[in-house]
This record gives sequence, structure tokens and C-alpha cells, in this order.
Amino acid sequence: MAKKNQDFVTHIANIEEDFPQWYTDVVLQSEMVDYGPVKGTMVIRPYGYAIWENMQAELDARIKETGHHNAYFPMLIPESFLKKEAEHVEGFAPEVAWVTKGGLEDLAEPLAIRPTSETIICDMYAKWVQSYRDLPLLVNQWCNVMRWEKSTRPFLRTSEFLWQEGHTVHATEEEAQEETIKMLGVYREFAQNVLAMPMYTGRKTEKEKFAGAVATYTIEAMMKDGKALQSGTSHNLGQHFAKAFGITYQSKEGREEYVWQTSWGVSTRLIGALVMVHGDQRGLVLPPKVAPIQVVIVPVAAHKEGVIEKCEEVCAALKAAGIRVKLDDRDTVSPGWKFNEWELKGVPVRLEIGPRDMENGVAMAMRRDTLEKQTLPLEGIVDACAELLAVIHTGMYEKAQAFRQAHEYDALTVEEMEKHFDEDKGYVRAMWCGDRECEDKIKEMTGATSRCMPFEQEPISDKCVCCGKPAKKTVLWARAY
Amino acid sequence: MAKKNQDFVTHIANIEEDFPQWYTDVVLQSEMVDYGPVKGTMVIRPYGYAIWENMQAELDARIKETGHHNAYFPMLIPESFLKKEAEHVEGFAPEVAWVTKGGLEDLAEPLAIRPTSETIICDMYAKWVQSYRDLPLLVNQWCNVMRWEKSTRPFLRTSEFLWQEGHTVHATEEEAQEETIKMLGVYREFAQNVLAMPMYTGRKTEKEKFAGAVATYTIEAMMKDGKALQSGTSHNLGQHFAKAFGITYQSKEGREEYVWQTSWGVSTRLIGALVMVHGDQRGLVLPPKVAPIQVVIVPVAAHKEGVIEKCEEVCAALKAAGIRVKLDDRDTVSPGWKFNEWELKGVPVRLEIGPRDMENGVAMAMRRDTLEKQTLPLEGIVDACAELLAVIHTGMYEKAQAFRQAHEYDALTVEEMEKHFDEDKGYVRAMWCGDRECEDKIKEMTGATSRCMPFEQEPISDKCVCCGKPAKKTVLWARAY
Repeated sequence: MAKKNQDFVTHIANIEEDFPQWYTDVVLQSEMVDYGPVKGTMVIRPYGYAIWENMQAELDARIKETGHHNAYFPMLIPESFLKKEAEHVEGFAPEVAWVTKGGLEDLAEPLAIRPTSETIICDMYAKWVQSYRDLPLLVNQWCNVMRWEKSTRPFLRTSEFLWQEGHTVHATEEEAQEETIKMLGVYREFAQNVLAMPMYTGRKTEKEKFAGAVATYTIEAMMKDGKALQSGTSHNLGQHFAKAFGITYQSKEGREEYVWQTSWGVSTRLIGALVMVHGDQRGLVLPPKVAPIQVVIVPVAAHKEGVIEKCEEVCAALKAAGIRVKLDDRDTVSPGWKFNEWELKGVPVRLEIGPRDMENGVAMAMRRDTLEKQTLPLEGIVDACAELLAVIHTGMYEKAQAFRQAHEYDALTVEEMEKHFDEDKGYVRAMWCGDRECEDKIKEMTGATSRCMPFEQEPISDKCVCCGKPAKKTVLWARAY
Repeated sequence: MAKKNQDFVTHIANIEEDFPQWYTDVVLQSEMVDYGPVKGTMVIRPYGYAIWENMQAELDARIKETGHHNAYFPMLIPESFLKKEAEHVEGFAPEVAWVTKGGLEDLAEPLAIRPTSETIICDMYAKWVQSYRDLPLLVNQWCNVMRWEKSTRPFLRTSEFLWQEGHTVHATEEEAQEETIKMLGVYREFAQNVLAMPMYTGRKTEKEKFAGAVATYTIEAMMKDGKALQSGTSHNLGQHFAKAFGITYQSKEGREEYVWQTSWGVSTRLIGALVMVHGDQRGLVLPPKVAPIQVVIVPVAAHKEGVIEKCEEVCAALKAAGIRVKLDDRDTVSPGWKFNEWELKGVPVRLEIGPRDMENGVAMAMRRDTLEKQTLPLEGIVDACAELLAVIHTGMYEKAQAFRQAHEYDALTVEEMEKHFDEDKGYVRAMWCGDRECEDKIKEMTGATSRCMPFEQEPISDKCVCCGKPAKKTVLWARAY
């Protein structure tokens, strides 16, 4: 038995010593993802894709509950469209992939593979929106997008990724702003209640906002190495695209008015966030709500009478209750092998059932998040598992939140900021005068970028951390992925 | 009131006189789809996309029940991959869109936007499959694909479309063949029980098979103009791709063996099939299982006391029972306008509730498929609606089947075939010697292609319909989309 356990070899770098390598090892060895043949692309393998499907189901329900409908817009965007909004093209042109040949012919105009779909959607909206009765127009799409990136990493930054992008049209500025904030709230709630991840929320600075937006709002997470990951954004587009694409409506009073717009999105990057917020030295630790397998049952001494039957019975009962369960009845590997493999894959609960457990009317349950073992009575095992999954979710969220709190700092000087980042990374709260020059200088000196101006503006001083002039904003800064 | 009804203007061409134009009018005016800005592309609008989502949910469940897992492979395929399987590249090269620039740089090797994903998936499978323990590998993906087509039509043939593509790997030839036939069966059952469409099933001739397959099997539907629409295919790939990409496994006996593979897919083309199988002069007629709205409630004399309240009560009860219901409480248009609009949109059941109905404790129900009206007791309205939806499904299937039977012919000469196609289109059963020459000649003379060699080979003669030599196969022929 011991020998067989040793056969299950993983080469996972030490999470404390080499976090980036630990991440790569875990996502590859858990079989979530693989490198695609074209540089910068990834293959989302079934285990990773099942997590994405669970995320999609939860988020899609929230998007629909808030009145949005899904649609699908073409992937190829004429070059001329991208150029219509000046800031937008400036921001995205350097990372666009271009189609220049169709079949055997050269195209008259190059076509961009969508890096995001504002332009092509606005072109359609200009046709669809006529009257105030057509508003609000609340549309979302799930699709692939492409951004030609120099340095890539599975889930976090790849040339092609999957996402959803909401695109809404409103009659008034107030309504558009309300929508922008509402959808950021949906993301925050989703992150908390489904992914067990606490998020900082706030507004991006001008420097960091979306190319073409009036204002960008963001949810920002803290990874286990203290670095930040932008996890979702919601943009108030004002009338920038409406004017560029001529989207107008006739108001109740019969006037021709430009519309107000928003867009918002989250992507497969969230899978990377999950790994880096919850993972540990043994591999993935998946939040129960998105885990492809929530409970794995491992028979112990499976050859003994009744063991497999009891495992099958428990498996069927859990399945009937809607719990995603797997009975690992392979006879080619030892229980120890199975323990290692399912720990690597982050399954929230492992149930071990053997002859002695059966005699005692219990199963041994191990929580992946704490690695703690406990016995659960076989009588009522379904309710016990459901409860344990809920407890694990809460535990994971609280753990992530405690970690975050332990790595938050206030700083009154750039030197202090630098010291925090060098010693511990994490997030640093510091005051800012609002000038781009100071923002650039802070980045240059500390390697940190402004993550957001949090909604709760709690000033810690009245002076800019950089130039000492009167501060206008409280800003969260961090080194980021 | 009468005046307002006249305001709802649709310009739907006569279905008997100009079926192609009728189709275009219906799909555009029902707001299922719109033309994209790039030639040959389509925008799937929310109403059309909701149908696709319902199809996906039903089919995805079936794909998973049969043991497959979803994954996602990159969209960009190196040119060298496409060239590895000779027949495959010959079939697809003329319709590939090429990416030649990424960001600001020209690419060293052009990248194809997937017209189908066999090549890139096989490249990964060569890496993943090592041992017989890795088999079978049962993977599916939902994605967009692109084929640069000359003449396009929404849903039926567009340069970009959405589909699912299953790609499986097996240890034996028998297992691969079994999988190929099993998934064709899943498609046939799905078409029947979800889309209310009867399908002819059988094998494609060599001429019509998928580029790179050993054998292609197909489900073929008959449109209301008598023409055929290939609606889904399942391919036995044999070892063609395994040999081109070097996918081998070590057998239990320790031998290195090439694997056996299948692939199979259906696409958004099925939405077009739905329209052309079930639609009528008033517009769409949607099968209840995929209709975005299954029951629409239209208040009559909505200003009268209690009418809106009763409508809301019925709406809530239907919703609670899982029926997709909409209460059309707009006060800007008349009931007559609403009737026309929801008929155009193909909603299976319309409930009208007015003061007199309430007095009588009933609602007036109209079936979209037959346009028949009946009263349903308000007491027990939920069960009555659920039952009516089931009856409609069966009715639509039987109607489509009866239509199909009325347009099936047997022919013993090519002239007879031609006569049937000219007079009525439909499908013609005729014998074939198996030579490509005869197949080409029949197409030249009749405009019809071989749709399939049905599984039930019921010979109607022993001579080829074209050359008179001994017949080898019974073939279904039709003019096709």
C-alpha cells in the first residue's frame, strides 16, 4: 500500500517559495488546463471547463434575474468600426488579431477578431433603437474573445479566453450609472456567495479605466501571494459610443436624443483567481458551489463484504439529493493514491467508508479546506454532507477574508508603501491628489498600480502620499497580475 | 381598436409562392436574427438565442448522460495542422478564414479560424492518450466556427455559426462505430422529442461524407417546400486522424496501437430547420420544448375590474409550475396587435382573459399550431396548460410526419425522379449502383443530391435508377439547402 501511494507523484513547487510556479504546477497537474499549440492559447480541459460551466450557470441566472437577455453577435469586426471611438481603438489596436484572407481571397478590409464587442454591438443598436419604447435594452453574450498578449499564463492572461459581456442602452445618464453599479454588485455578490472570494470594490482611476468608458468600476481580489487580481469590471460608457455610432432614440416628448450605455464582463480569469485565493500545497481547494465533484467516496478495504454496496448506496442517495458525487471504485490504485489525487483536484469533501466504519454506522469525512477529519453518521448522511458543504463555503470565505485583512496596510509615504510591498505585498491604502504624474511615479517606485478608489472613502490623511498636495481620493494600491 | 390592429404590419411573402422569401421575412421580422455588418454573418437576437439556449440545455443533458464531458479548445489552428490529413484539408481549405496578423506583427505561420476542430483536438489527444486506461475519451465542445461561404442565409448557411462538436477516442473499431451510431440516435431522438421534427437517418455516400471520415451518418429533415436540410452528422473517423497526428495507446497487452475516433455535431442551423418545418403564413410555430415563451397571456378589456389581477394570478401560477409564461400587459397596443405579434413569434399557447371569461371561470386558449380555440377552466389552469403543451408537441410532430409522408416518392428512372422534383420536390427513393458517375449524373439531371442511404434498406428494384446495372443501395434523394 505504502509503495502504491508513492507512485502518485506530483511535482508541485513550494507555494511559499515560488508561488507562480506553484500556480502553473497546480493548474496543469489537476488537469484543469493545458497549453494550446499556438503561443499564448490554452485548452480548458474537462475538469476546468466543468468549473466554468458551474460558474456560468450561477452567474447567468443572476444576469437573467436582473432582466437581461442573452444574444450572440459576430466575432469579426470591420477595422473601420474599431476606429470610430478614438480612445477605444488606441487601447485595443495593439492587441488585435486580424483576419486578412477568407477562403482563397484577400479581404478588402481587415477584420478584427473581437477583443471586446462594443463596436459591433453598437452598430446593431443604432439600427434597433428607435424610440423610448425600445429602452432599456439589456443584452448579454457569452463568447470567446482574443487579445494578442506578449506574456501569457493559463486563465490569467491568454490570447483567447471565454467571458460574458453585458451591453445595455438607457434613456438617461442616471439609469446607466445605476445599471453600472448594479452589475458590479451582482459580480461582488456572486464572488462572495459562489466563489467564496471577498472583493474590494470601487472605481478605477482615469489611467486604469476601460478604453472608451467614462468610468470603470472593478472588483479586485487578493491572491495568496498578496498580489491583486482584477476580477471583473463594469463600465459607464456615457454617450461616447452612442455618438460614435449614432445611437439615438425619440423621447416621449418627440426629441431625438443620444442614448446612455454600459458594459460589464467577467471571464475565465476567475478560474485562476479561485486557484490563487484558495489553493494550498496539496493543490486545488474548490468552493463547493462550483466544484465539479463536491463529494468523493473512497472505499476502504473494498474487497470486504458489503463495502462497495454501502458506498454505492451512499453515492446514490447523495446524487438523488442533487449533490455532485463520485464513487472512486478503481481497483488499480490504492486508497492513498486516491486521497492524493482528489486532494490535488480540490474536491471539498472526501468520504471514506470501510468495514469498521460500517460497523460503527459512520463514514469518515475529510474537509479539503481544513484537512480536518470527522465522522458522520451514515444515517442522515445526505443532510450531513449538504451541511458540511455549506460550512466549508463559509469557512473558505472567512479564511480568505482573514487573509486579506492580515495583508492590508495604510501608508503615509511612498517609502512606507514600498516597504509594505517588498516585505509582504498585499494592498496598501494611501491618499492621492488625483494627478496622473503621482500615479505613474508610485508605480515606478513601488511596482504597484492603483487598483481602485473604494466606494467607502475613508481618508487616512489629507495629503497625497506622493507629492504632499491636498489629497482628493483614498486609493488601494497593489502589485497586480 | 380596429385601426390599431392594422398598425401591426408584417410583410411576409406568401409561403406557397415564395418560400425562400417567406423564410427570410419570418426570421427577420420575428426578431430571431439580423444580418451582421460583415457579409455572410448573422446576429442571433435574444428571441432566437433563447431558442438556442433551450436546445442546448436539452441536448447538453443528453450528451452528458451518455458519458461525455465538455471542454474548450483554442479557435486558432496552425495551417500545418490542417494539412496533416489530406482529405480534410482538401475539403476545408477553400472555406477557411485566415489570421495573418497578431497585434502589430505579421505571423510566421497563418492561423485558421476553426472550420471544425478535429485537427487541433487530435494534436492534444496525441499528448493526453497514453494507455488503454485513458480510453474511451469522450469530449464535447460548444463553440463558434467559421466557414467562408459564398452564398449565405441566416441560420442555414452563415460564415460564422454556433455548434457543438463531439470528439471521442476508442480502443477498438467496434466501439468507435457503436459511438458513431449512438450519437446519431441521440440527435434523432432529440429532434423528435424536443424539436418535434421527424428525421430520415442513414449513411452518406462517399461523395457526401465529411472530409477525413471513413463514414458519415446523417439526420435529414424535410422542409415545408419539400427540400431537404442536413440537420446533424456523426462521423466514424476510423484511424485517419490517429495516423496523421500519431495518437497511440499502450494496450493491456503492452502493444502500441493507433486509436479509433468519432466526431459529431449539430448547429444553429437547427433553428432554421424549426422555422421551415413548422412555420406558416402568420410566422413562426415553435415547438413547446424550445419556445422562449410557451404561454402568453393577453388581457381583454384590461381596464375592467379584476382582469389584470386575474391575469397576474394565472401568470404566477404557471411560472411556479415551471412553464415559461409572459403576461403582455402593454397598454400602448390593442389585444389584436398582441395576437398578431405573438403569432408571428410562434408562441405555442395564447390565453385570453377578459371579464366575461372570468364570470364563466374560464380562459380562452388558442393553439398556435392549429389556430384552434378552446376554453380552459381557470380552476386547474396550470395542468390544463401543461397538458395542452404536450398535446401541441405531439400534434406538431405528427403533422410534420404526415407532411413528409405525403411528399415521399419511389422512382425507377431518372426521368421519374425529375418529374417528382419538378412537380413537388420532396424526397425520392431510388436504387443506385454505387458509382460516383451515376450520383453525379443524377444531380446534373435533377438538381437533387443523395441525402442518405437509409438504415432500413428496402429495395424497390434491383437496378440502378441511372445506369440500369445491378443496384447496391437504396438511396434517398432530394434537392437540398
